[in-house]
Amino acid sequence: MSSEATGPKPPAAIDRMSGELRKADLQDAATQLFSERGYDGSSLQEIADRIGILKGSVYYYYQSKEDLLFDIVKAIHDEHLENVRMLAARAGDPMQRLHAVLVGHAIFVCENLVKTTVFLRELERLPAERQAEILRPDHAYQRVFRDLITEARDAGLVAAEVSPKLASLWILGSLNWLHRWYRPHVTSGPEQVAEQFADQLTRGIKPSVLWERQARSS
Amino acid sequence: MSSEATGPKPPAAIDRMSGELRKADLQDAATQLFSERGYDGSSLQEIADRIGILKGSVYYYYQSKEDLLFDIVKAIHDEHLENVRMLAARAGDPMQRLHAVLVGHAIFVCENLVKTTVFLRELERLPAERQAEILRPDHAYQRVFRDLITEARDAGLVAAEVSPKLASLWILGSLNWLHRWYRPHVTSGPEQVAEQFADQLTRGIKPSVLWERQARSS
Repeated sequence: MSSEATGPKPPAAIDRMSGELRKADLQDAATQLFSERGYDGSSLQEIADRIGILKGSVYYYYQSKEDLLFDIVKAIHDEHLENVRMLAARAGDPMQRLHAVLVGHAIFVCENLVKTTVFLRELERLPAERQAEILRPDHAYQRVFRDLITEARDAGLVAAEVSPKLASLWILGSLNWLHRWYRPHVTSGPEQVAEQFADQLTRGIKPSVLWERQARSS
Repeated sequence: MSSEATGPKPPAAIDRMSGELRKADLQDAATQLFSERGYDGSSLQEIADRIGILKGSVYYYYQSKEDLLFDIVKAIHDEHLENVRMLAARAGDPMQRLHAVLVGHAIFVCENLVKTTVFLRELERLPAERQAEILRPDHAYQRVFRDLITEARDAGLVAAEVSPKLASLWILGSLNWLHRWYRPHVTSGPEQVAEQFADQLTRGIKPSVLWERQARSS
């Protein structure tokens, strides 16, 4: 036990408050390391080293690296989901709400690059059933986009030939890909990128009759 | 040496023809394994096992797993680049050529899911300078899309407010993301997905005056 005297306290000595704190530290350190080296390239030992605890203390919170990844990926997914659901529930016609969701999701990705990278890249490292547990029945996340597009199409605001399913995957691709190239201080600001992308995405699915009307009134 | 008597020939005995063949087998097996387990989760031993050669024989071709990944990723990148350059060089106005490139790239991704997955996912596992060596000066691949958009914008076929750089990243995101969700026999055929995506992407950057003209003539 002498080696622990000057190091971190053994798990049994951690009270609830500092325990919660340390679990959050553990998740933050792991998220950062996974984003830098990938899940496969990171070990529990390295994660423990980053926050100055013993590897054994990690097992107080998680039985395995996979359990840690699951918790991290689920929390990031749920944050993203809450954000788009909140935006989709605002006032406006379905196309205005879709535009707001697109802007808000793009900004969220740009401002949370590390977390988004870990979610999008490392989700695949979980077994299929644990991935499904996070994405929930019927892809709740994708469903927010799909439902708005369906609603907008029913209202004549989206071209009849657009498939809401394919269009939602098309939208998510262009916005999710932001994490691969967007860099603060190099690229234009998040708002500028988000507005341009949201404009292009909504233009891309509008029926031409709406364009005609808008062009006439401008 | 007795263990090799019934196994593969030692490297020195491989003649040029079968050597080339085996190198291609090695790359194919590695590509498949990387797509299934990720680069970090695959070992040279497992790659050698898949094609029934000794791990030592791998070193006849490659000094390291990284060198093997470099060759694979570079070859896939160059195939993609050749495809879009060939499509971009066809006849037509810049918007028609852009549409053809978008359709052709989307189909290429759908029909080469394993390769595209390894390229897009594992490129990041190479050191920065080797990534740059593949992407070449000024991102030759992205440049094909960017140049067509610039040309189309100069001809008044793309809205003046569209940034060719951001638009090319927007386009590549939605098309590259196909490798994450497109599955043959589950999703609509590659041509259907490719046409819908190309239509939406080109609509998304057109100036509204063009829409007006098209709506009137239809």
